Amino acid sequence: MLSKAKIKWIRSLEQKKFRTEYGLFCVEGHRSVEELLPLLNCRFLAATENWLQSHTKLPADDIQAVAAEELQRLSRLQTPQDVLAVFEMPTQRLSIEDLRGRLVLALDNVQDPGNLGTIIRIADWFGIEHLLCSKGTVDAFNPKTIQSCMGAIGRVKMHYLSLTETLPTLNHPVYGTFLEGESLYAQNTLPQEAVIVMGNEGNGISPEVEALVTQKIHIPNFPLGRVCVESLNVSMATAIVCSEFRRRALTK
Amino acid sequence: MLSKAKIKWIRSLEQKKFRTEYGLFCVEGHRSVEELLPLLNCRFLAATENWLQSHTKLPADDIQAVAAEELQRLSRLQTPQDVLAVFEMPTQRLSIEDLRGRLVLALDNVQDPGNLGTIIRIADWFGIEHLLCSKGTVDAFNPKTIQSCMGAIGRVKMHYLSLTETLPTLNHPVYGTFLEGESLYAQNTLPQEAVIVMGNEGNGISPEVEALVTQKIHIPNFPLGRVCVESLNVSMATAIVCSEFRRRALTK
Repeated sequence: MLSKAKIKWIRSLEQKKFRTEYGLFCVEGHRSVEELLPLLNCRFLAATENWLQSHTKLPADDIQAVAAEELQRLSRLQTPQDVLAVFEMPTQRLSIEDLRGRLVLALDNVQDPGNLGTIIRIADWFGIEHLLCSKGTVDAFNPKTIQSCMGAIGRVKMHYLSLTETLPTLNHPVYGTFLEGESLYAQNTLPQEAVIVMGNEGNGISPEVEALVTQKIHIPNFPLGRVCVESLNVSMATAIVCSEFRRRALTK
Repeated sequence: MLSKAKIKWIRSLEQKKFRTEYGLFCVEGHRSVEELLPLLNCRFLAATENWLQSHTKLPADDIQAVAAEELQRLSRLQTPQDVLAVFEMPTQRLSIEDLRGRLVLALDNVQDPGNLGTIIRIADWFGIEHLLCSKGTVDAFNPKTIQSCMGAIGRVKMHYLSLTETLPTLNHPVYGTFLEGESLYAQNTLPQEAVIVMGNEGNGISPEVEALVTQKIHIPNFPLGRVCVESLNVSMATAIVCSEFRRRALTK
């Protein structure tokens, strides 16, 4: 059985304040945990006897067998999981050198944890290693984001910083999606050294960041010019824009 | 104040059984309700006095002013909404003629209501008017799907049917995403009369539907050939594939 102190410790990681204080975050579910174990330091792991029997030599500091019901009581999810683990947050130091020659994604106040998780997965799929997040962007280590991005959080490097201070220090062209932008498809080139900025769900890209955008683009709807009341959700737009950038690199 | 009977009636629409029996579904929030009012018959609308004052000549059979707290008690959402409406489900009769010359999306047992909502929004954006859903696909009129697809449910026509019976009656080539498929980007042509099949979140496309797929494709990750533990979520994959089909139509 888990001690009361341990339960309290695990639960505290639902709050950003404690995640930041301890430098730790919590992950549920065998797929995410198995993916992260080789990538990040695991401070604590609780799992059912069954799960532990099929997973030996676990690289975790502290391992505890618990009953399935106990895990379920701890769980934030509706479907019962057989493992839960506390990992150290990777500490990232951004050097501008790391971004040279690379495609970089920048998020300007993305608010929805599920959207952020999806975006991290898209970045991972398309080999975008660095995600620059404005300080107003939702915390990547909150449980909902971790649940939706799965193991990708162990591969994509998250940097929370001021976009208005950082973007000018890069020499990358800066692409941003705007209703009045030029067609994404019709761009002559989409360079693989570039920043793609995605904006807030309701307000889009902020005026301060817009001032740094060198190329305004938009995703054409079909048939062209049809009035569409809704816009695409930010994570769908990210998927489409990143796919088009990488398509250019793969088919030229 | 709403009568007990009316509250019970509205709440009953959270269940598919009653939605099907009454042919009705419930929508919350001003953006979705405003978008749907010109598109579907509205049987009942409850809103705050404020909202009603700024919306006159509403095409609804029965309109009732309610207190904000009352709406909030009825609401499934965390953020308080100022309007709720009950609409008639559009009745769709599929004629094969309607699909001639068109790009059609088919869903093979997509289970997650949020994914379905996102996919309906993508279909709407890319002018795909008909969505063929296997009978095992989650109900499009459930509250979570309605919430995530917003007004698009009034424009995209949903057909629940047997894919294995219907697809062979079309003369469309059938595209499906598979790990071993050919690169989406490298396809010589992507015809605008075609079916794109998307599969279940965990199991992909079922063997019976796979047998009807004429062209297996996949979305390349980057760099090419890198082993990726996770695959793209079904709604992201749908966004990318639909975008690439429409790009071909717009840039040829």
